[in-house]
Amino acid sequence: MRLRSRARRAAPRIHNVPIGLKAAGTRTESDSLGEVRVPADHYWGAQTQRSLIHFSIGDDRMPKAVYHAYGYIKKSAAIVNGRAGRLPQWQADLISRVADEVIRGALDSEFPLYVWQTGSGTQSNMNVNEVISNRAIQLLGGRLGSKDPIHPNDQVNMGQSSNDTFITAMHIAAVRAIREQVLPALDRLRDSTAAKSRQWEHAVKIGRTHLEDATPLTVGQEWSGYVAQLDDATDHLEHTLTGLYRLAIGGTAVGTGLNAPPGFADEVTTQLAELTGYPFVSAPNKFAAQSSCDALVRVSTALRVLAVSLFKFANDLRWLGSGPRTGLHELILPANEPGSSIMPGKVNPTQAEAMLMVAIQVIGDDSAVSMAGAEGNFELNAFRPVIINNVLHSARILADMMDHFRAYLVEGAHLDTARLKENVDRSVMMVTALSPVIGYDQAARIAHRALEENLTLKDAALRSGVSPALYDRVVDPERLTEPGVARR
Amino acid sequence: MRLRSRARRAAPRIHNVPIGLKAAGTRTESDSLGEVRVPADHYWGAQTQRSLIHFSIGDDRMPKAVYHAYGYIKKSAAIVNGRAGRLPQWQADLISRVADEVIRGALDSEFPLYVWQTGSGTQSNMNVNEVISNRAIQLLGGRLGSKDPIHPNDQVNMGQSSNDTFITAMHIAAVRAIREQVLPALDRLRDSTAAKSRQWEHAVKIGRTHLEDATPLTVGQEWSGYVAQLDDATDHLEHTLTGLYRLAIGGTAVGTGLNAPPGFADEVTTQLAELTGYPFVSAPNKFAAQSSCDALVRVSTALRVLAVSLFKFANDLRWLGSGPRTGLHELILPANEPGSSIMPGKVNPTQAEAMLMVAIQVIGDDSAVSMAGAEGNFELNAFRPVIINNVLHSARILADMMDHFRAYLVEGAHLDTARLKENVDRSVMMVTALSPVIGYDQAARIAHRALEENLTLKDAALRSGVSPALYDRVVDPERLTEPGVARR
Amino acid sequence: MRLRSRARRAAPRIHNVPIGLKAAGTRTESDSLGEVRVPADHYWGAQTQRSLIHFSIGDDRMPKAVYHAYGYIKKSAAIVNGRAGRLPQWQADLISRVADEVIRGALDSEFPLYVWQTGSGTQSNMNVNEVISNRAIQLLGGRLGSKDPIHPNDQVNMGQSSNDTFITAMHIAAVRAIREQVLPALDRLRDSTAAKSRQWEHAVKIGRTHLEDATPLTVGQEWSGYVAQLDDATDHLEHTLTGLYRLAIGGTAVGTGLNAPPGFADEVTTQLAELTGYPFVSAPNKFAAQSSCDALVRVSTALRVLAVSLFKFANDLRWLGSGPRTGLHELILPANEPGSSIMPGKVNPTQAEAMLMVAIQVIGDDSAVSMAGAEGNFELNAFRPVIINNVLHSARILADMMDHFRAYLVEGAHLDTARLKENVDRSVMMVTALSPVIGYDQAARIAHRALEENLTLKDAALRSGVSPALYDRVVDPERLTEPGVARR
Amino acid sequence: MRLRSRARRAAPRIHNVPIGLKAAGTRTESDSLGEVRVPADHYWGAQTQRSLIHFSIGDDRMPKAVYHAYGYIKKSAAIVNGRAGRLPQWQADLISRVADEVIRGALDSEFPLYVWQTGSGTQSNMNVNEVISNRAIQLLGGRLGSKDPIHPNDQVNMGQSSNDTFITAMHIAAVRAIREQVLPALDRLRDSTAAKSRQWEHAVKIGRTHLEDATPLTVGQEWSGYVAQLDDATDHLEHTLTGLYRLAIGGTAVGTGLNAPPGFADEVTTQLAELTGYPFVSAPNKFAAQSSCDALVRVSTALRVLAVSLFKFANDLRWLGSGPRTGLHELILPANEPGSSIMPGKVNPTQAEAMLMVAIQVIGDDSAVSMAGAEGNFELNAFRPVIINNVLHSARILADMMDHFRAYLVEGAHLDTARLKENVDRSVMMVTALSPVIGYDQAARIAHRALEENLTLKDAALRSGVSPALYDRVVDPERLTEPGVARR
Repeated sequence: MRLRSRARRAAPRIHNVPIGLKAAGTRTESDSLGEVRVPADHYWGAQTQRSLIHFSIGDDRMPKAVYHAYGYIKKSAAIVNGRAGRLPQWQADLISRVADEVIRGALDSEFPLYVWQTGSGTQSNMNVNEVISNRAIQLLGGRLGSKDPIHPNDQVNMGQSSNDTFITAMHIAAVRAIREQVLPALDRLRDSTAAKSRQWEHAVKIGRTHLEDATPLTVGQEWSGYVAQLDDATDHLEHTLTGLYRLAIGGTAVGTGLNAPPGFADEVTTQLAELTGYPFVSAPNKFAAQSSCDALVRVSTALRVLAVSLFKFANDLRWLGSGPRTGLHELILPANEPGSSIMPGKVNPTQAEAMLMVAIQVIGDDSAVSMAGAEGNFELNAFRPVIINNVLHSARILADMMDHFRAYLVEGAHLDTARLKENVDRSVMMVTALSPVIGYDQAARIAHRALEENLTLKDAALRSGVSPALYDRVVDPERLTEPGVARR
Repeated sequence: MRLRSRARRAAPRIHNVPIGLKAAGTRTESDSLGEVRVPADHYWGAQTQRSLIHFSIGDDRMPKAVYHAYGYIKKSAAIVNGRAGRLPQWQADLISRVADEVIRGALDSEFPLYVWQTGSGTQSNMNVNEVISNRAIQLLGGRLGSKDPIHPNDQVNMGQSSNDTFITAMHIAAVRAIREQVLPALDRLRDSTAAKSRQWEHAVKIGRTHLEDATPLTVGQEWSGYVAQLDDATDHLEHTLTGLYRLAIGGTAVGTGLNAPPGFADEVTTQLAELTGYPFVSAPNKFAAQSSCDALVRVSTALRVLAVSLFKFANDLRWLGSGPRTGLHELILPANEPGSSIMPGKVNPTQAEAMLMVAIQVIGDDSAVSMAGAEGNFELNAFRPVIINNVLHSARILADMMDHFRAYLVEGAHLDTARLKENVDRSVMMVTALSPVIGYDQAARIAHRALEENLTLKDAALRSGVSPALYDRVVDPERLTEPGVARR
Repeated sequence: MRLRSRARRAAPRIHNVPIGLKAAGTRTESDSLGEVRVPADHYWGAQTQRSLIHFSIGDDRMPKAVYHAYGYIKKSAAIVNGRAGRLPQWQADLISRVADEVIRGALDSEFPLYVWQTGSGTQSNMNVNEVISNRAIQLLGGRLGSKDPIHPNDQVNMGQSSNDTFITAMHIAAVRAIREQVLPALDRLRDSTAAKSRQWEHAVKIGRTHLEDATPLTVGQEWSGYVAQLDDATDHLEHTLTGLYRLAIGGTAVGTGLNAPPGFADEVTTQLAELTGYPFVSAPNKFAAQSSCDALVRVSTALRVLAVSLFKFANDLRWLGSGPRTGLHELILPANEPGSSIMPGKVNPTQAEAMLMVAIQVIGDDSAVSMAGAEGNFELNAFRPVIINNVLHSARILADMMDHFRAYLVEGAHLDTARLKENVDRSVMMVTALSPVIGYDQAARIAHRALEENLTLKDAALRSGVSPALYDRVVDPERLTEPGVARR
Repeated sequence: MRLRSRARRAAPRIHNVPIGLKAAGTRTESDSLGEVRVPADHYWGAQTQRSLIHFSIGDDRMPKAVYHAYGYIKKSAAIVNGRAGRLPQWQADLISRVADEVIRGALDSEFPLYVWQTGSGTQSNMNVNEVISNRAIQLLGGRLGSKDPIHPNDQVNMGQSSNDTFITAMHIAAVRAIREQVLPALDRLRDSTAAKSRQWEHAVKIGRTHLEDATPLTVGQEWSGYVAQLDDATDHLEHTLTGLYRLAIGGTAVGTGLNAPPGFADEVTTQLAELTGYPFVSAPNKFAAQSSCDALVRVSTALRVLAVSLFKFANDLRWLGSGPRTGLHELILPANEPGSSIMPGKVNPTQAEAMLMVAIQVIGDDSAVSMAGAEGNFELNAFRPVIINNVLHSARILADMMDHFRAYLVEGAHLDTARLKENVDRSVMMVTALSPVIGYDQAARIAHRALEENLTLKDAALRSGVSPALYDRVVDPERLTEPGVARR
């Protein structure tokens, strides 16, 4: 009866009040457990306030990206509910309008909750419901906390549960972070690395395996390996996004869709795809979609593997830049800042170090995500906040770090060509090229002789009976950087 | 000159000697560091023996699957080298023949090396080269250890390096493990689970979120969630195989292909694809393929995510089967064995426990793989043995465990239908269905009243003014398992 | 020469200017790489500004606790340098005075740097040096950025390096976090848990092993197990503090103590112990103290094990509280907030869930710490920021979480005594007590009979030939909670 | 009644039959679930056979060390039960005798069970009970499988449960592995490292921080750091043993001690301490001792930290040995084996690589242990097999690896003194010593000048106005390896 009477009510006037509450002190809000005093200058209601009291743990706050994603959800649900007549159109429009304020971050200060809260994210969902309710009531000139005519549960949350919406918000937030932060930064790093690879395609250097001198390759070839790793990371990350595009919305409390009308899942998802521009679809199985966080666990492992690849890249660069006098120093890294408070003139591979630390953090974050992902029970994985916080954290630091690593290390690196040449001249492992001609055993004897008698490879080869003509024809560093078998 | 003279030599007679060496004591073998005594009843040579001495660490042996994969590689390389005339045809044929013995496991006892060895896998490659050399020499009636006319390096390893072949063998072994063990077992488990889901599609139960009573669903719906998780795991695992299909072979020492002729990479890969039946292709970038193990790191994370999904599945089943008198006991698990040495008559969810432990081990294995994958330097990742050992270990225990879990738990599980019904009758969370009609706040009051006054939901609802007709129409457990909004 | 002239200079007048810079726009600061524009309303100098530019990665800032610890270090070094005449007394006093401002947090806004910076922490050390320098210069009425007469390196950093001070600051900050946050909260939780254990020492319940019904114990006994776990965690954590008490200060750049006078290490450490009240000693080996972070890695693992114990505790409580109608529900958890946005009246074990998530995060944090701890090279572990950030993060969320878990779950929990009794009456595993009298096999037959025929244990026993007298004497739930063997 | 009659029975004759069963085919054994066919040439019974069928998963077998530990437990319990008259003395003696066979490994082939089994270890306990029962019956000339007169549960398991004995066996096995394998190998490595440190105490080298040239130290100082890390690891590991010394035995099914007589816990523990020589005590709280594996989780983290320290040590050595021509090459590592199948004459730091891989594996193993340790529920942690398998695995590979690393790398390493000297001569970071005299800024200018103009430090200093006398006095590499501040 209440619903029907509301539906009939003529659309009230909307007051264009800017965001903000001037009141001081506290006001009374209530929920099913009773009344609570909340700060009068905030929109949130009783459940948000209870959460603030019971969960003020550390400094980790639920990422704002989750709330912005919730803005899309509340707006989409309102549009669909309005269109179907379940909400009066003016109510749907009003919720949409406030949801837009949520989306654009204008209400960010109203979402103060901690990561360490209920495992379903209910408190953050209710925070959104309460803020939208009160902000809508403000726009209507009503009394904050009255829940009338826009009730947090009955109207803002209509057809929804935290159990389907929070995981939906997690997916939306993660998709945006991956597509708008990680993949573009990865792409930029890949392109800068590829440019370096092309720039140095003829710079011959001695390869290293087991850290020990090996046969030559070009610096461009070496860097093409980093490019290939980044390409594979991009492909992998994009594939894991397919799971994120499947949204739980419409499953409500346990995946059955109780209290959501038939078709609601598809309609809201379509709306979400339209509003966000991403190819969201309704999850084909809501029970899996709500009782697990597998799609996010998968994305998190893709970030882990990206971190593994970046670790190798950054580690190589800091070693190649080591020295300047007693290290490898094939690469000259940009001197971005003084390196030491006690050693004047020192310059360190700090961008590489930061990247290595970020990679380690991402691996640590993912360890938490996996364990949390395993711990779902029955119809709900109640470890969602720790999962989304770690995924978004990893995405953010990886994206930022790739941009800084690119701008302040990769793009500014140049070669110590004198050192490269000196190394090529001194190395003995080009003896490998002689092996198909004189046999492995004889080649090994030459290499050992060079090292023991402190000779150049050529001297050792000639003293061991290799003809100068053969040597010069076979041991040509540049030609050794391509497939080919020496012939007698 | 040596090479040419060999090539001209007429094909010698092959003696069809069965595998086995009758000699006692030791014989002398040699490598570039000098002579070594090896057991006379084994085919391996000096480098294998050195490794046995220097690396007898724990009980972890390099998995035999790696050697079987190496059999394919040595055979394929011999075929390609023979076809091109780099090896006399009879030598190519002989190496192929012995490689077939390696492939079918007939020489397994000749591959004794430990996992904890050189990080490139060189010692295992040389183990294969030495065994093939000596076995071939035996078949020719030659002298073991003479390396003549089949030299471990010059002939068996022709055009190859450990750096490209070992990672190739890792890919082949992993592909076979995933495709022949993991995916089939996963498929069987998925099908058995789907059959249970269909069998129980009308069995209504009370859902649980946060472990607390929630709205109803059917057991079939619940199990459909497990099926969906397994389907996603299959899709993910299959996608990561694409990286494994790219083989490093042809890159030789540092990825450049030195000492391999142009075209060798493609030709050997084509041969490998033909022999194994898997769609192997030559890795587009050999530098990445040898300096990283990213493709295997990716596969390992896919096994990690599969373990995460299986953890949830197994954990649910053991809780649903808990009791029999003081637990949930909606599910009756098969009594495979007595559960206690002190408590007579006890039956425990042991298959589920084993699955949980396997899942944890796989996550631990993957932690090792990721860290090892990050530690490559320059032209080589020298942490390969720990990677392949963990990947194959995880694949093996996951595959076996899924089969046992299916056969001894899933397929034999049945429902305690009396308990299911009792729970449905007692639960109060079906009050949710009333919420769209009477509002969230009023519905909450009814739920609290039922709990505080120890009433059934119906009693509480009726005492709170809900009409019996409304209650009976709205609160119908079976209908509450589908989308739908109650109307006044 | 410069130094000597400064030393002779008479003590200048100190202006008691409050903290704060009124200037707008930027001013010029410089370092060995040249000039940099910094915000005019901040004290920091060129190196801080360079770091802000090059390392604005994510939102993770170096914890303020590290800077407060640095305040103690700078003050202690100044006192020691002043006492020895290396600094004029007025300079030592001035640095001490500003260091006190750092210690009490009054300059917190001057320490904006990110976690992802140079791996040694040099930039944070220089941030402190620059801020103290400029604040001191302000107090002297000098020109900010002039470095005269208090130079960031020559005076504030005198006798120090980032390499010894940053790890020293990490130890100090970690000691304070463990001793002032973690251990007290752990102690409070332990005491509240012990109080519950005593309160419920006579409440008999059915034990559960493998989640399955087992023999009885008292709730007090069960909770005494949690107390014992917390006691062990306390002991372990305290032992790992011994490593933290060893400070690297005095090792300077690489551990040798170059540029620090003999005795400096001991003198500064004594000063630090006095100022902080903690039993710090000079690390007996500075090379280990600077090239590793082992002491912190150890503390981090102690937090990991504490998290493991808390996970079990919280997990038990949420399961014991599950229901209310279809779960175990032996424990009634406090209803702190509504549990669902869609299911009215639902109450969830949210404190337990938050604890489980915190525990998982701590395990993830520690995974990062271990990997970072392994990656030191030669004379420095350059992964310090990621280590201290994770250790302090874990300490903080564990401490806060233990307090909330105690206050909002443990202390408010009470027993569902009716359910406890019902379970005792229904269970069949008390058959175990009969086993010493009638043998395991016969006891097992009775248990199976009870379950198959849906009998009480007593009915099954009597129908199987056990006399009522024997049964009543042996199967007394309360007596079965203590050691004892039934006799015929 | 049965018990009493048995007690009265006179001691039967013992036949001194050697271990071994000649029978072929199968025989029938039974347990509370019915009959099972077992191989006639094995002693195990029905429950072992059921486990073999239901848990043939992978290749991971329960470590034999667990069974040897069980031998001590069964013997100790028999002695105590015999002494108290609960077992006839001849039965106690017989069980003791067979337990001795278990202890010395003579029955190892009778313990075939897999790691992936019931989480309590019940099946391994029953395996021991069944084997002792049948072996005792064989010695008595009885019928295998008759359980008469030595019943697996009633006699061999008297006063025990798997729940208290299996965790007790885990503790005993872990104590032995740590004290007899890990700590001695750690001690040997520590001593060899200390000998190297003393040998090289005057060899001056350029230090490296951030991989970049830093101020000098001696090689002996550098190695003293490794020694200090190993000393700390020893101390830490020993402290965690205190938890392992506390045994659960006596707690029986759920920690209460039901079916064990008062005093049994202490008496059996005293017996175990006597037989093993380790200071075992009865766990003060059996509920914690059985429901958690915290003591083992703690030991596992101590192995993790040891692995972290060893990773740094091994990593340093392989980098210091890198080259020989294009790497750091300050250290000459022993050439234990040829390094490459394609590059003749190559020698690699294989022991270091193996150590790095072992360290990574130990960290991975510990990740599994932590997660398993967290998953206990109520009165039992049912993740014990995965925990003990990983702890013993880590202990084993660490111990073996430390011995190999010591013997084949540390003890055979020597210095490339020419390279050390060349590096000292070329480095510019000794400018640091001038800093206290000429100020940090001026010193930095000299360092930059040296690098930019490719000068020696001395040349750059002199050209910048430093007097030769000052330079020579202050920049003396050997003196720079000790505390001291240069004065004008």
